[in-house]
Amino acid sequence: MLKVKDISEQGLIKILHHFCPENIIGDDAAILLTQPNKSLVVTTDTLVEGVHFSDRTTTPEDVGWRSAAANLSDLAAMGAFPIGITIALGLTGDTPVTWVRQLYNGIYECLQPYNTPIVGGDIVRSPVSTISITAFGQLEFSHTILRSNCQPNNVILATGVHGASRAGLELLLAPELGESLTEPERSGLILAHQRPQPRLDILKTLWGCLSLNSFSGTKDSKNSILVGGMDSSDGLADAIIQICQSSQIGARIERNQIPIPQSLTKFVSSEQALNWALYGGEDFELVLCLPPICGQELVKKIGAGAAIVGTTTDNTDILLIDSQGIYPNEELTLSQGFQHF
Amino acid sequence: MLKVKDISEQGLIKILHHFCPENIIGDDAAILLTQPNKSLVVTTDTLVEGVHFSDRTTTPEDVGWRSAAANLSDLAAMGAFPIGITIALGLTGDTPVTWVRQLYNGIYECLQPYNTPIVGGDIVRSPVSTISITAFGQLEFSHTILRSNCQPNNVILATGVHGASRAGLELLLAPELGESLTEPERSGLILAHQRPQPRLDILKTLWGCLSLNSFSGTKDSKNSILVGGMDSSDGLADAIIQICQSSQIGARIERNQIPIPQSLTKFVSSEQALNWALYGGEDFELVLCLPPICGQELVKKIGAGAAIVGTTTDNTDILLIDSQGIYPNEELTLSQGFQHF
Repeated sequence: MLKVKDISEQGLIKILHHFCPENIIGDDAAILLTQPNKSLVVTTDTLVEGVHFSDRTTTPEDVGWRSAAANLSDLAAMGAFPIGITIALGLTGDTPVTWVRQLYNGIYECLQPYNTPIVGGDIVRSPVSTISITAFGQLEFSHTILRSNCQPNNVILATGVHGASRAGLELLLAPELGESLTEPERSGLILAHQRPQPRLDILKTLWGCLSLNSFSGTKDSKNSILVGGMDSSDGLADAIIQICQSSQIGARIERNQIPIPQSLTKFVSSEQALNWALYGGEDFELVLCLPPICGQELVKKIGAGAAIVGTTTDNTDILLIDSQGIYPNEELTLSQGFQHF
Repeated sequence: MLKVKDISEQGLIKILHHFCPENIIGDDAAILLTQPNKSLVVTTDTLVEGVHFSDRTTTPEDVGWRSAAANLSDLAAMGAFPIGITIALGLTGDTPVTWVRQLYNGIYECLQPYNTPIVGGDIVRSPVSTISITAFGQLEFSHTILRSNCQPNNVILATGVHGASRAGLELLLAPELGESLTEPERSGLILAHQRPQPRLDILKTLWGCLSLNSFSGTKDSKNSILVGGMDSSDGLADAIIQICQSSQIGARIERNQIPIPQSLTKFVSSEQALNWALYGGEDFELVLCLPPICGQELVKKIGAGAAIVGTTTDNTDILLIDSQGIYPNEELTLSQGFQHF
């Protein structure tokens, strides 16, 4: 099998150029045309072999897809549409050339629906494979989503189910766990882990709902409704806590309203399912704070999976509550969250 | 000594936030204001511990500086001014927190003269330390420098001396080599290796020379003079060959005109010095193709180190010639160049 050490750097770059638009490749940097009067949005995300992915659970295509999806999700979380990405690859000499091609295939596939080009990159030798993607997007300033934009007495909305990605990972690591699942249920969860969808599709719907309801909500100086939010890549609990802390508000999260795939409760306890939903991470949904009328309308428009999970408050307590009265109120913490070191 | 595994990811991020402008940190992505009617330029560059740097020859500050400088040099090579960078770090848990802080110090120092902010980043655990920087710049479309813009019968200009960075590296690896050098000579060469300067300072001078001489040179459809060029980060020979191949032209490079620091010939043969100048790399100068009158004026304005090293031709031969007749004409090749795998 041909390895990257068997071909020159130029040879490898030549192969990868097939994934890039011809007119912007071949110089020291890439030139992108931006629309005037839009802001530039940038984000970067790194995956390391053995830390963030392994051959056991992830094909090179999936590594590429997830790496691109994570960046696009960060753009969506700001309200921005992607205009291009760069890829910095660290590769061992023993990496098969096919692996690199498949990685790029996965990245390319993820970008396709958004017409987002790979505009540049860097390839270096490394004792361990690493992939750093930096994505650029643009947004209209009045359509910016910030963590610090949240207001009290708004609803907190999740754009889709949580816990699916973590469940998919468990099914890949221990397939016997999922014996009670139908094949579509099993593959649905695995796909949620391998091919998460950045929620760029939400943005147009979101701004549509807001302009229809522009009489409600707190406005900025330009009279736009402030939208608070972020993505749930580090878990739903993390997103809620980050948003509350940035906005200096509190929240009451209704544990029975958190959208969890039904299939989860077929193979783990409902407590475990809730745990994965809150702390599993990598669901790449958006968590948004909106005036109630906008939130309700957006949930209706998004459909399956979207839900209002709670409300924001004007103190700084972040509580997990149970309207059915079975569980006592709990403080929502990061304690089960993922620490990178 | 405090290590990154001893503090949480949030703790480390908190320390690094001191290097970032307060108003653009803390969300999923950073928002940058760009000037309307300018193009966005992006470039990315990765350094891996043990491959691109080692504690033996490079302090963390220098690693940071060089990593930032390489990216800014790529922007300069396109004619673009920097507006921000993102940093993706892979770190072992045993990395001292001080090391990370010093790395950021070096990056920050390099960016300072250009008022360029660190606008975001990602920190992940990795078995080997890696630093990927992505830089964003903007340029006026009529002021774009492309490798493919070169024309025959122009001059090829180097904006400064070559071989200094490689000589500095050798002096760090084997200090006894430099016994014949004065202290300023020695430290000058070492500084060229540790703290290369991206040639962003050239750009304004360049466009000034071109507008004064706008009657000469090949124009594009908007009647701007086309400037061909790139940076010499992979060596002067590499830059000349890449430019010629992209522009489908040839070149005659005069070996006695290549600007080499005098101090080099005090401790290596003139052949070795020429070799380092052509193939050493990391001098981060610009190599530009210009109409002769512009080239001569630019060299005068830049001063020390800048030189016209040859002329472009309308065939595709790339020759190293000796006007003194001592050496026969040679084909200039990449054969001594650096292959990354």
